[in-house]
Amino acid sequence: MSVKFAVLGHGVVGSGVVELFYKNRKSIEKHAGTEMDIKYILDLRDFPDSPYADKFTKNFEDIVNDEEIASVAECMGGVEPAFTFVKACLEKGKSVSTSNKELVAEKGDILLKTAKEHNCNFFFEASVGGAIPIIRPLHRCLAANDISKVAGILNGTTNFILTKMYNDNMPFKEALSLAQQLGYAEKDPTADIEGHDACRKICIISSLVFGKHVYPKSVYTKGITDIQLCDVEASDVLGYAIKLIASVSKLDNGKILPSVMPMLVSYDSIMSGVNDVFNAVLVYGDGIDQTMFYGRGAGKLPTASAVMGDVIEAVKHKVTVFSQSWESASDDSFVEKIENFSSRWYFRLPSGSEISGVEVYNNENGLSYITTEKLTFTEAKLKAEKLDAFAFFPVLD
Amino acid sequence: MSVKFAVLGHGVVGSGVVELFYKNRKSIEKHAGTEMDIKYILDLRDFPDSPYADKFTKNFEDIVNDEEIASVAECMGGVEPAFTFVKACLEKGKSVSTSNKELVAEKGDILLKTAKEHNCNFFFEASVGGAIPIIRPLHRCLAANDISKVAGILNGTTNFILTKMYNDNMPFKEALSLAQQLGYAEKDPTADIEGHDACRKICIISSLVFGKHVYPKSVYTKGITDIQLCDVEASDVLGYAIKLIASVSKLDNGKILPSVMPMLVSYDSIMSGVNDVFNAVLVYGDGIDQTMFYGRGAGKLPTASAVMGDVIEAVKHKVTVFSQSWESASDDSFVEKIENFSSRWYFRLPSGSEISGVEVYNNENGLSYITTEKLTFTEAKLKAEKLDAFAFFPVLD
Repeated sequence: MSVKFAVLGHGVVGSGVVELFYKNRKSIEKHAGTEMDIKYILDLRDFPDSPYADKFTKNFEDIVNDEEIASVAECMGGVEPAFTFVKACLEKGKSVSTSNKELVAEKGDILLKTAKEHNCNFFFEASVGGAIPIIRPLHRCLAANDISKVAGILNGTTNFILTKMYNDNMPFKEALSLAQQLGYAEKDPTADIEGHDACRKICIISSLVFGKHVYPKSVYTKGITDIQLCDVEASDVLGYAIKLIASVSKLDNGKILPSVMPMLVSYDSIMSGVNDVFNAVLVYGDGIDQTMFYGRGAGKLPTASAVMGDVIEAVKHKVTVFSQSWESASDDSFVEKIENFSSRWYFRLPSGSEISGVEVYNNENGLSYITTEKLTFTEAKLKAEKLDAFAFFPVLD
Repeated sequence: MSVKFAVLGHGVVGSGVVELFYKNRKSIEKHAGTEMDIKYILDLRDFPDSPYADKFTKNFEDIVNDEEIASVAECMGGVEPAFTFVKACLEKGKSVSTSNKELVAEKGDILLKTAKEHNCNFFFEASVGGAIPIIRPLHRCLAANDISKVAGILNGTTNFILTKMYNDNMPFKEALSLAQQLGYAEKDPTADIEGHDACRKICIISSLVFGKHVYPKSVYTKGITDIQLCDVEASDVLGYAIKLIASVSKLDNGKILPSVMPMLVSYDSIMSGVNDVFNAVLVYGDGIDQTMFYGRGAGKLPTASAVMGDVIEAVKHKVTVFSQSWESASDDSFVEKIENFSSRWYFRLPSGSEISGVEVYNNENGLSYITTEKLTFTEAKLKAEKLDAFAFFPVLD
């Protein structure tokens, strides 16, 4: 018997799923252990020249009411109508695999509950880190670990811009324009450069690892628009790269502290070598010590590859995978306030400031150094005000 | 109902499995979806002071004949008696999770077949890359990809030695002694420094990715004993690190070409930043482009973490996972000869040799350069002989 699935959305990712499925169909069917085919592709636009023109529909009801459809790949993006469509599919017992991080970050808990109630699965490997297998390794292979921290470069656009600033001494605005020219950044780049995209992804990781839904509004999020070439240069001399780091830590008080901020990453860390549009996720656990997952965080085929992997899993799993799930949270009291975030810090102060006992880099743009002791966010901010700092960023330790 | 499992061997990895299980038991049981406990630990030695002294047995028959035992963790190492024990467990329908790369590389096909015949599983995540989830991501998350190449730093001991040679200008013998002092290398370091350990791991990866058992004897294997500090220095100046690379590629003629050799890795590649005892595996596929998995390749808890992850999977999967498997091979005609291995090459020639059109590094140790064109292994060897080369290594492209 052939298993039929549907693809919602024929944009970049959705068309990639269709392309990849027909390209590697034989191997996909071998992994799934059954014959498979795409029965519907949902899109409001017309694709008369597509070799799969007969599969297109503009009517979601065709899909949700077709009992032959066992599995659905959602590649539309945005919360609505994706949420309504996905929920309706799950309520009919059709497993859904999505690349839609906004949907998972805002409505993941509800959709996971719906999937459980109807004995099917809501999978979202593609929503974080594109091609990088991270969701499944996190919940499966690392199941034996007490995970204390996850830190990642989760946005390719900002990492491309920062790489250009580092390697080519290119100012932020110029690097952003180049990213837009190359199709790495949207015309309106806000979601990327202000950190909202990375924030959604760390919400998903936080929810999965610590078991309760973390909403984007609970996460302190700062983008890369304030980073200047002189900070890039100074941090390089001090032995660090500035990266936009989305991280979440488990604190001694039992709370978790997720955040998105530019941070200094030591050249001793493999993470500092993650460049261009590549993403990476470092996971810290009591058994594994540290493990990193690296790859393309976006793009047509990389993201489609992750969606397709989930569709195969959905076909193989006839029952809900309970552990790849989390609960709703009635409030965010389990999320620690950013004021209590603690780390070493980089400061750039006016030239001639008096600092002792630390390695400093001094030039016409100021005096840059990294504290030896840890300071909370609040303490660092007070210190920055007191010393008239031009810039201050935490260090990823 | 509580699921009972047994641990074969109470050495470094086996004792790590016991420790990690009792440390993280609650989270492990949550992931497994059932209560779990260790019923037996098999070892010929006595451990009277162990808090689990009552679980020890010296008699394998206790375990294999106990119908309550659903799953077994094999951490003994070596082909025998591990092979006999594992086969007997599988024949009784008990799933086995192993950290024993020698066993998988030599007997994987037979044990996978036995598992299939008795509707249980033979899992081996811990046999490659220690803590790094690589086996399951390879076969699951990347199921939608046509994988063209896998290349890895799969031996921590040699990577530690090479890192010391690079960072501290330490000669090979001294770095090896240090590795032995720190417990990273065995008293007899042959299996590590001659590449045999990495060879077993690339055999396992090759078998899994390409579906037919590849035996160590079919794989060209060269270790790191010939690498000299002057080659380390020259490759650094040319923009490369020398790493012991275990790799396998699918060729246009349909054959595969696995090998273990020191190779030059460009500083542009994230792989060049994998240092000390860390391991990493780069996977190339048509969907993902490239993905890297990084972490501790050995050690008590990292390896135990991978074994425990497999035990949890085994408890969850009541039936054989057919796709995480491969077939026996009647011969090795599908393995291409090393003579046809093709890449760019690094040569170190006598000073004053005439080379044109390429960037060279010249000092009292000779003239080092990298070819612009690709040469086969045979061509490179002929060229090395003709030019009286002191050393030549392929470049990882």
